[in-house]
Amino acid sequence: MRFATLTEVGGRTTAAVSLDGGWHRLPAPDLSAYLAAFHDRPVTDLLGEEVQGARAALPLPAPGKVVCCGLNYADHITETGRELPTHPTLFAKYADTLTGPTEEIRLPAGLDVDWEAELAVVVGTEIRGADRSEAAAAIWGYTVANDVSVRDWQRRTLQWFQGKAWDRTTPIGPVVVTADEIDPAAGLQVVCRVDGVERQRDNTRSLVFDAPSLVAYVSTFTRLRPGDLVLTGTPGGVGMGMTPPAYLTDGAVLETEISGIGVLRNRIAFTKD
Amino acid sequence: MRFATLTEVGGRTTAAVSLDGGWHRLPAPDLSAYLAAFHDRPVTDLLGEEVQGARAALPLPAPGKVVCCGLNYADHITETGRELPTHPTLFAKYADTLTGPTEEIRLPAGLDVDWEAELAVVVGTEIRGADRSEAAAAIWGYTVANDVSVRDWQRRTLQWFQGKAWDRTTPIGPVVVTADEIDPAAGLQVVCRVDGVERQRDNTRSLVFDAPSLVAYVSTFTRLRPGDLVLTGTPGGVGMGMTPPAYLTDGAVLETEISGIGVLRNRIAFTKD
Repeated sequence: MRFATLTEVGGRTTAAVSLDGGWHRLPAPDLSAYLAAFHDRPVTDLLGEEVQGARAALPLPAPGKVVCCGLNYADHITETGRELPTHPTLFAKYADTLTGPTEEIRLPAGLDVDWEAELAVVVGTEIRGADRSEAAAAIWGYTVANDVSVRDWQRRTLQWFQGKAWDRTTPIGPVVVTADEIDPAAGLQVVCRVDGVERQRDNTRSLVFDAPSLVAYVSTFTRLRPGDLVLTGTPGGVGMGMTPPAYLTDGAVLETEISGIGVLRNRIAFTKD
Repeated sequence: MRFATLTEVGGRTTAAVSLDGGWHRLPAPDLSAYLAAFHDRPVTDLLGEEVQGARAALPLPAPGKVVCCGLNYADHITETGRELPTHPTLFAKYADTLTGPTEEIRLPAGLDVDWEAELAVVVGTEIRGADRSEAAAAIWGYTVANDVSVRDWQRRTLQWFQGKAWDRTTPIGPVVVTADEIDPAAGLQVVCRVDGVERQRDNTRSLVFDAPSLVAYVSTFTRLRPGDLVLTGTPGGVGMGMTPPAYLTDGAVLETEISGIGVLRNRIAFTKD
């Protein structure tokens, strides 16, 4: 099934599920609230009327944790000059870092802003210390993310966090597709386009650490709860890997697409201060 | 003034303030909820009856953000073999990483668990893009923290996060002392003892990036809200800097003290799984 948080006329949002070609209201303002309250209830018990004329918003506005993996596609690891890892490289974002699938990404002018198309895993069950099969069972679904990165801040120190946690710069969405419908291990195309030019294309089959492995690994040290996100890393083709490096310009349109899920389309807007 | 979250008989918690030698109830279950609801109200409007026989709990159980600075005392930077930084090295924890001032710190046996005594800054006003003086004005108070670190996991990859975000391993407390009463720039002693043996002693005067600088820097990229925490980094004397390196053992008692605030006293308990 496909779930979304939809913005209706007037600006209010609602959680919704796609059934029979239409979006049906669920009794929560967004998918974060829906999962927190109803993750163990059959969706068919909760179906409301069809929602008309709405557009996709940030599906999960309030995850307690957004854990991100770096260096998880062989070709991206190679372009950064590193060897294949024995453990996943992890860093954190906060809920504030996220933004919707069609929102402008606003940043001060003068930063080196780069793209990173990624598959994001949505946790559906509370877990800690899960093994691989428990982790697989705890995955509710998948969505599209772009781990837009401020490279000059990311490189200021050893720790990437300050280049990765600018408010409202990581678009997520447009929908969450449940894990019974798509399987990243079987292969989903991950594509990033900048102003219509394809910059990244790879397949989730090539993930060094796949979705259940990452979720299990993270759950070793921290509890994951319904609505938490795990971003699985980006393939090769980022701007800092180009010769010379190329970054997003003011007004650039960033498209991030994963087959079977959908497309994010975000315009970059540089501000004066 | 001194604020705390107190656990009463029966296990319920309450926010409280110390006045005239006694702790007085405030109308919130903890300081996170208190700051969220009342950060701009005079505390004298909110005073309840005196709380008897309570003990200090984790003062801020629900910060939206816990941003930590590494490498911020000259002697600790030297012991890790690095040069003085031009920018603060930042990484993130989540609310789940925190624990109370007298709680056991439970971790699986076999990890290299190290101590890092730190001053923690409590944000009192929502800020984004603050300059130094705005940041200073947004600091509500200070508390004690120990950024207990799982060194073997911290070193597995380039990013420290996975060694820094084990649930319930960063003790915080026992109280928050408001910024009108103490000034880290004027000098607070930061001390860490393991089983009674002093391992760290330094003074907050020696911070490379002081509290207002750190808060201002973080607010450049993310909004800080009442109850958020900024940990300011640890001085020299950590276990990994010893020859040979020494880590916390099962049953070890970790004491973390900052002059003018108080002492955390946490026992380490290694679990079998």
